[in-house]
Amino acid sequence: MSSRRIAIVGTGLIGGGWVLHFLRLGWEVSAYDPADGAEARLRDMVARDWPLMQRLGLAEMANCDRLAIHASLEGALTGAEAVLECAPERLEVKQALFAEMDRIAPPETLLFSCSSSFTISEIRARTQNPERCLLGHPFNPPHILPLVEVAGGPRESEPVRRAMEFWEAADKVPVHLRKELPGHLVNRLTAALFREAVYLIAEDVADVEDIDKAIACGPGPRLALAGPFMNYHLGGGAGGIEHYLRHLGPSQVARWKSLGDPDLTDELATKIIEGVKRETAERSIADLAAERDGRLLRLLELVDPGSK
Amino acid sequence: MSSRRIAIVGTGLIGGGWVLHFLRLGWEVSAYDPADGAEARLRDMVARDWPLMQRLGLAEMANCDRLAIHASLEGALTGAEAVLECAPERLEVKQALFAEMDRIAPPETLLFSCSSSFTISEIRARTQNPERCLLGHPFNPPHILPLVEVAGGPRESEPVRRAMEFWEAADKVPVHLRKELPGHLVNRLTAALFREAVYLIAEDVADVEDIDKAIACGPGPRLALAGPFMNYHLGGGAGGIEHYLRHLGPSQVARWKSLGDPDLTDELATKIIEGVKRETAERSIADLAAERDGRLLRLLELVDPGSK
Repeated sequence: MSSRRIAIVGTGLIGGGWVLHFLRLGWEVSAYDPADGAEARLRDMVARDWPLMQRLGLAEMANCDRLAIHASLEGALTGAEAVLECAPERLEVKQALFAEMDRIAPPETLLFSCSSSFTISEIRARTQNPERCLLGHPFNPPHILPLVEVAGGPRESEPVRRAMEFWEAADKVPVHLRKELPGHLVNRLTAALFREAVYLIAEDVADVEDIDKAIACGPGPRLALAGPFMNYHLGGGAGGIEHYLRHLGPSQVARWKSLGDPDLTDELATKIIEGVKRETAERSIADLAAERDGRLLRLLELVDPGSK
Repeated sequence: MSSRRIAIVGTGLIGGGWVLHFLRLGWEVSAYDPADGAEARLRDMVARDWPLMQRLGLAEMANCDRLAIHASLEGALTGAEAVLECAPERLEVKQALFAEMDRIAPPETLLFSCSSSFTISEIRARTQNPERCLLGHPFNPPHILPLVEVAGGPRESEPVRRAMEFWEAADKVPVHLRKELPGHLVNRLTAALFREAVYLIAEDVADVEDIDKAIACGPGPRLALAGPFMNYHLGGGAGGIEHYLRHLGPSQVARWKSLGDPDLTDELATKIIEGVKRETAERSIADLAAERDGRLLRLLELVDPGSK
């Protein structure tokens, strides 16, 4: 059993997921969240999702005793080898937290932000040791999906090298970004897909539920197994991506030119919201998310990249 | 056992997949492909992928005897309740085929084109009975993934109504499109994702293999379970898509504005091709596609929408 210790600052949807993940691994977890009722919500989330963690393996009931909830940031950071900041998405909150965490934590401690909205350069602007402050952005739910996006320095720099080792040791799949962009990497890809989906609604080509069904019955399962480049490699016939780009590249570019750039009006938003309401048929988000998480887990068990 | 009969015109990658699919269902399958060596390639494909069909259920060895390969288009169409055109993606070839099929087949026979590049309005331009000529576009591999895009008339028209019933009876998930657009529906969504992926390579944010890994370890598994709207519904916290669009809509629009529109130069294509080569590490497309198909099947077995 590991005696490693992680600090989680902010224990909402993402921070709570990280608490679950590191408890599963048997790490000591120090949590801090000053919000009213945060401790009760966190303990509820851990109790509710612990069976999922047990299905993922390693998780023993006694691991839950390794969660310590602290009343101060300083208390939570003591003895932690890394800190994951999962505070609300407000830049001034994150900047203030990083300034304080940077003051408290020994200089070798890695400080990660889970922010999806801001770049790490913005978030660490007020720190004394910006180079050990890095992006560590998961994809929700962080206790189930393997991806962590790492940004904030060159791949060969000491902090980034240690960050990549850290995430691998923490049973995650880190991907290093050489540049900072809004949405980092994967949220740009999903935003591109979403923009076109919204355009197809704006153009009245199909209904919300049809578009969702089409993705889940078509490209979705392939994207669970491989990314866009490998998909085009296997979709281009015997010549693979080389034949595809060299000979059919112009048809792809022509398709790009026809993609939409919708104006997200109130009326369009209403049309989408009503479509999702039809699709969910009164089922609660909690219920739908729990079902998704169970299926995700099963899916990841079965498409394990090492297996055939 | 069914005594229904389907005709498949063109038996390459897509047509061959359809042959497998309908043999699995126990239908009579009449195939026609004038290309040199087409019959041998089709028989190889059926033999190779039949074990996958057996895993999908229904497929009995005797079903393979229901495949009849014809030397003429007329022979293949005789007695078929529907025809699937899967010829090479050349408009003049498809237009000529549809004119001939329309002449041969009784007026109640549905004629589907599997074209990914052309709209059905273009393809049926030379027919006498255009309304029974419809798009029936699968997502590769058609014998494994459930989606079929149907276009070519209003949802309530007689041919479209019959087409939707046909595909449901054929164990597929048809989605009706109210308008014709380049790329139909899902290939527009995947093109949007691909464009941004290509942009991230152009900008040197990450490597080809990192982007592929990020999708498969992040949004991919979620897209196998649900489409973009449901994903944003479950990613928007307790308020779902309503809260997301009403309160965070502007941040999504800002992200859209930052998405790229790359120039697919020869140099950029080379960078992508070299990345895919590193990623595949000398493995053949046939080998990679066979592995993908086995995993897809397992994935679909496990995320069956009826299960929890």
